[in-house]
Amino acid sequence: MSSFPGMWDDLGDVGRAPSGGYRRFAWTREDGALREWFRGEAARRSMTVISDRVGNLWAWDGDPDADGPGLVLGSHLDSVPDGGAFDGPLGIVSAFAAVDLLRSDGHRPERPLGIACFADEEGARFGVACAGSKLLTGDLDADRARALTDADGTTMAEAMAAAGVDPGSVGRDDEALARIGTYVELHVEQGRWLVDGDAAVGVATGIRPHGRWRLDLRGRADHAGTTRLEDRRDPMLDLAALVQTAREAARRHDVVATVGKLVVRPNAVNAIPSEVTAWLDARGLPVSAVRELVAEVGAAAGVDPVEESWVPPTTFEAGLRDRVAAAAGGDAGPAPLLDTGAGHDAGILAAAGVPAAMLFVRNPTGISHSPAEHAEADDCLAGVHALARVVRELA
Amino acid sequence: MSSFPGMWDDLGDVGRAPSGGYRRFAWTREDGALREWFRGEAARRSMTVISDRVGNLWAWDGDPDADGPGLVLGSHLDSVPDGGAFDGPLGIVSAFAAVDLLRSDGHRPERPLGIACFADEEGARFGVACAGSKLLTGDLDADRARALTDADGTTMAEAMAAAGVDPGSVGRDDEALARIGTYVELHVEQGRWLVDGDAAVGVATGIRPHGRWRLDLRGRADHAGTTRLEDRRDPMLDLAALVQTAREAARRHDVVATVGKLVVRPNAVNAIPSEVTAWLDARGLPVSAVRELVAEVGAAAGVDPVEESWVPPTTFEAGLRDRVAAAAGGDAGPAPLLDTGAGHDAGILAAAGVPAAMLFVRNPTGISHSPAEHAEADDCLAGVHALARVVRELA
Repeated sequence: MSSFPGMWDDLGDVGRAPSGGYRRFAWTREDGALREWFRGEAARRSMTVISDRVGNLWAWDGDPDADGPGLVLGSHLDSVPDGGAFDGPLGIVSAFAAVDLLRSDGHRPERPLGIACFADEEGARFGVACAGSKLLTGDLDADRARALTDADGTTMAEAMAAAGVDPGSVGRDDEALARIGTYVELHVEQGRWLVDGDAAVGVATGIRPHGRWRLDLRGRADHAGTTRLEDRRDPMLDLAALVQTAREAARRHDVVATVGKLVVRPNAVNAIPSEVTAWLDARGLPVSAVRELVAEVGAAAGVDPVEESWVPPTTFEAGLRDRVAAAAGGDAGPAPLLDTGAGHDAGILAAAGVPAAMLFVRNPTGISHSPAEHAEADDCLAGVHALARVVRELA
Repeated sequence: MSSFPGMWDDLGDVGRAPSGGYRRFAWTREDGALREWFRGEAARRSMTVISDRVGNLWAWDGDPDADGPGLVLGSHLDSVPDGGAFDGPLGIVSAFAAVDLLRSDGHRPERPLGIACFADEEGARFGVACAGSKLLTGDLDADRARALTDADGTTMAEAMAAAGVDPGSVGRDDEALARIGTYVELHVEQGRWLVDGDAAVGVATGIRPHGRWRLDLRGRADHAGTTRLEDRRDPMLDLAALVQTAREAARRHDVVATVGKLVVRPNAVNAIPSEVTAWLDARGLPVSAVRELVAEVGAAAGVDPVEESWVPPTTFEAGLRDRVAAAAGGDAGPAPLLDTGAGHDAGILAAAGVPAAMLFVRNPTGISHSPAEHAEADDCLAGVHALARVVRELA
């Protein structure tokens, strides 16, 4: 466990933004540095790193092809813009630390033990969350992914090639999937459930359905000083209606809805915009409530929302969940169960039929996707110990 | 006049954007190409080019220091993002064409005749419109200007230096101002007044007061999926209120108000924004109506608007205006008079005490700051002939 603070020190400066948060986007230089760090930590533990067809990295202790399938821990290292330090890295650092803890206790897992580093979980650069796991399972079409573009017009194929991953090989990878007997992802909590429940560690029951939609609000560029109000076609007014309807409908349907990203064209102080593109993120249960909200927001803005992603409700396998909760809780009794509105690679794998479970570590601010995201050192250590007990139980 | 279409051909490709509009921002490579073009057209006509302390270019026929002050025609060559072909260039191309027309008629002006190319009229890159003329008159503080930054964080000082203009010399230039006896700017109309009035050319009475304000709407970045509605501080809702209040107040006060530019941080689909910065452009008469609107918009958004620029009402000198209108109209009688809500370098010079006038050329779409901005060839030629008659009258 002596390496636990050291791993955080090594990661601390990679992609640090002036905000104090992180900008670690898929297939960038920062992402490359993080992937190198992962390979180095694996090598220090004599684990063998395999890159799958998608570029997800897998550090293996034991041979999953000969003696598999194995137990896989893991998460991701990329971030949203100005994201926190824990969302993603906590799962990978804790997995390496759990390996160290088990080894120092003399424990030898009976089946191969892997640590996964999923690529492009946040979708911050190309707009599709969990791209690495969705490509792995075939949930995201390879051609569609290769053609996705970032804000500079770079395609995902170009970005992958620049990072040394062959975009031609991208697609469902049955060989990599066959190595995963069980997947367990530890993640910082992205809400206040564990804070309110006074618990350091919890276990996920499921992931609420969630999706993102693009709304292209078209107007007509014109001079801000010389165009009469009655002659304007100003899409900013449609945006205002969209934002207010999203909030009002979310409250009425008891779900959440967010407009977090906008692109304004031409984005000049003295020009009426020709176009405002808004992205709507909506999540909750039942599915029909989310669907109705999206339709209402589209009607308010006068456009048809374009569905960019949709993840149906995920319910983690109850038997595995209960074993994980019992092991994670240790002598104190089973860890508490909670569901979440955030998408995770564990949910993508579960939907593809892989037995999967998740642990959450308490976040005192309840805030995430922000520099204010936090986890106390004691709670992080409790997470490592819980994860090690889960490995003992499952491997 | 044979050079008139040729000049448009030479300019047509510089800074052309995929939208069909132009992206010609101050002190960029495109701007440099346009300034080179200006020097070339001046040289072809044996006019001497002087760059003032600010980097505005002045092509002179005759010696304004010995025989001045002179009559100056002109406009600017930079554009808003995805702007039209005529806003700016029409004034400079027409000025060169008017010189050609007068020379082919054997006319020799009795005093020096200049053509001005003002730098950074649109303020698209650094956020301050008419920066070149405002620095020339001292209306914009040189230190403030040098420290302005573009979207990439480049300062105006760095941008000027990269373009070969010494930022250290920037400031009010009395020598350059002393050369201007009268300034006449021809510009494409940015509204439908001449279309509705069925006239090819009009003359400005004045410029309505106008300003721009920045509103920093602060929230708290958080996860779009896991943060309860009641725990959110989402500045996008303040933006919606701001936009709707701006439109409603503009209607009530009979002025215009526009939100054309936004910056959203971190601008991620799955993150509640930590901050939305909105720019408000407001113009009209009386000044008190604009002031009240800005205060109301700030109150709706819960912030104090920061005034980034303010140009009081400009009334062009009536005697000069009537001489220009009579000359421009020629045998058909005086050209019609109109006012405008758009700022121009002519307004900045007039406010600084320089006798100034403006001609407008009909724009059939009435649209500007957009690729849809247009002027028919016949109307452009009518503008050149009107401008040549104005030169005969004034020089």
